[in-house]
Amino acid sequence: MRLAILGAGDVGRSVADLAGEYGHEVVAIADSTGAAIDPDGIDVERALERKVGGDAVGTGDPEAVFETDYDALVEATPTTLGDAEPGFTHAKRALEADRHVVLANKGPVAERYEDLRAIEAESAGSIRFEATVGGAIPVLSTIEDSTPQAVTAVRGVLNGTANFILTRMAAEGLDYEHVLAEAQDLGVAEADPTFDVDGTDAALKFVILANVLADGGFALDDADVTGIQDVPGSALDLAAEDGRTIRLIGEATRDGVRVGPRLVPENGALAVTGTRNIVQIETKHAGSLHNSGRGAGGPETATAVLSDVGRLPER
Amino acid sequence: MRLAILGAGDVGRSVADLAGEYGHEVVAIADSTGAAIDPDGIDVERALERKVGGDAVGTGDPEAVFETDYDALVEATPTTLGDAEPGFTHAKRALEADRHVVLANKGPVAERYEDLRAIEAESAGSIRFEATVGGAIPVLSTIEDSTPQAVTAVRGVLNGTANFILTRMAAEGLDYEHVLAEAQDLGVAEADPTFDVDGTDAALKFVILANVLADGGFALDDADVTGIQDVPGSALDLAAEDGRTIRLIGEATRDGVRVGPRLVPENGALAVTGTRNIVQIETKHAGSLHNSGRGAGGPETATAVLSDVGRLPER
Repeated sequence: MRLAILGAGDVGRSVADLAGEYGHEVVAIADSTGAAIDPDGIDVERALERKVGGDAVGTGDPEAVFETDYDALVEATPTTLGDAEPGFTHAKRALEADRHVVLANKGPVAERYEDLRAIEAESAGSIRFEATVGGAIPVLSTIEDSTPQAVTAVRGVLNGTANFILTRMAAEGLDYEHVLAEAQDLGVAEADPTFDVDGTDAALKFVILANVLADGGFALDDADVTGIQDVPGSALDLAAEDGRTIRLIGEATRDGVRVGPRLVPENGALAVTGTRNIVQIETKHAGSLHNSGRGAGGPETATAVLSDVGRLPER
Repeated sequence: MRLAILGAGDVGRSVADLAGEYGHEVVAIADSTGAAIDPDGIDVERALERKVGGDAVGTGDPEAVFETDYDALVEATPTTLGDAEPGFTHAKRALEADRHVVLANKGPVAERYEDLRAIEAESAGSIRFEATVGGAIPVLSTIEDSTPQAVTAVRGVLNGTANFILTRMAAEGLDYEHVLAEAQDLGVAEADPTFDVDGTDAALKFVILANVLADGGFALDDADVTGIQDVPGSALDLAAEDGRTIRLIGEATRDGVRVGPRLVPENGALAVTGTRNIVQIETKHAGSLHNSGRGAGGPETATAVLSDVGRLPER
C-alpha cells in the first residue's frame, strides 16, 4: 500500500523507516514544518536525515499531502484531547476521500469515537488503531479476532513511564521525585511527564478499549483516574512485606474505565517491570489471555501501525 | 460463512456450538460414525446431544460432506503423524474444490507443510491453522501481523499436561508417576498420555512454528525432543534452592526445533503454572512479545478456529 504519513516524530519516522520492509511505499511524510511528497515513493532516508538534523522533513506544503494519491493515511501527530484536533480532521478528510486511516494518535478514538465511526461508515476506507493501545503488543487485533462481544473486560498496565517509576521506587526504596528525575535522565519520562504520571495517558488507552468493547460511548472525562504522584515510598515497603507491590492498573469494561495505583501480587502477571506493558483480556469462552511486551517506542509503535496496514481491506 | 466441520470431539463440537455466536452457520458436522448435513444449517443442539449421548452425530454419510455447499472446512479430526492422513486428504479435497480450510488438526501443517501450501497456491481457498498452536492464545496471527520475516524465534510452553505435572511435582515434592495419576484423574492427562509427556505434542506445535517462520522445511523427525518422564523430583528441589524451576520448553527458529525440560527462573515469564501455556515471540523491531493463556480445551480451541474463520478472505 502507498502510505501518507502525518507526523515526523519517533513514530512517524519509524513507520517511514520500516514501511519498505513490510512491503509498503511511502508517498508522503509531513508535519507542521513541511512535507516530503513523491507519488513514486519519497527518499525516506534523506527525509529522515533532514528532520533528525533539525530541518523540516521536506520543502513541500503539508496541505498538499491530501492531494497525493495514497491508499492509507498514517495519523501519527501528537495526541490532543477534547476535540482531538487536528488529528480528527486529518482522519475525516482521508475517509471522506475514501482512503484508509491508521491511527497512532489516541485523540480521535478516545475523545470522538462515535463521530469517527460515523464518517467511516460513509467511506470506502476503514480505520484501524492498534498503535493507540499498548505499542507493540497486539491488543485490539486480539479483541477483534476474539470478537468484541466475547470479551468481558481488559485490565492491565499500559503506561511504561509510570510503571518504570513504581518499579524503581520498590526496587531501590527511593521516593517518587528522585525516581522521576532518573526516568527523565534516561529518556523514559518526558520533560513534562504529566500525562504519564497523572494517569491520563493510560486512561486514554483504556477509554479506547471501552469504546471498542461497547462500540462507543466513552471519552476521557468518563474515566475515573488517579495517578502515581502521591504514592509514597512507604506504601511500597508495606506492600512488599505482604508479598505485593503497587502498579498503575487500568480496567475497561462495557460499563466504564478506571485507572489508579493498585496492590498486585509481587510475582504475578500484572507486576510487569520497567517500562514493559501488559494486558489481560478476559473472554467468555477462552479464559484470560495475557499479552505483554514493549508498550512504547518509535519502532515498537511502528510495528503496530504496519500490522494494521497489513490488515486493511482492498478499497 | 458456512462451515463444514470434520471431527465431533471436544473441538469439533465446540466449534459447532459457538459458530452462531460468531455469525457463522454450520451446514455439516461429521466424524467416522456419521454426519449431520443440512445446506440451510443443521440443528446443532440436537446433533451434539446425539453425539454426547453415545450415538452417531447424524445419520448422513460422512462422504457427503464434500458435496455440500460450504465456504470453509474445519478440520478437527485427531492429529496423525507421518502422512497426516486422513486429515491431509480432507484439506486437499476442500482446497481442490476452491474452499477454505481451517485446521485444528496439527498433522498436515507439522508433517506435510510444503505439500499443503502447494495445493493452497493452486486454490481460490486459503488455509489457516491458529488452533494448531496454543489453543486460545493468538500465536500465529501475531506472527502473521508482525510478518514472519520480522520474527526471529518463538519460545515457550505449549503443552499444558506436561506443565501441570511439573508444576505439581515442584509444588508438592511428589514424583512423576504420582502426579501423572493425579493429572489423569483430573482429566488433564489422557489415559494414554504419551504424546504429552514425551514432548511430541509440544514438538508438533514448534515444528508448525518453524514452518511458518521458514516457509516450510520441517517435520516432526527434524525436531530434537526430550520429554519429562525422566525428570526426578530431586531435580526440582535442587532447582528451587537456586530460585528456579523446570518446565518443558520448546523453541522454534528458522534453523530448527528443540523441545526439552529446562531450568527457568521460578518467577519468570516462562514458569507458567498448571495447564497454562505461554509463547515468547522475539521480533526484530519490537523486542519480545509474550502471549499466555489457555492452551487447550474445546471452547478455547474453538475460539481460535472461529478467529481464523473471521480472517478468511472472500473466495
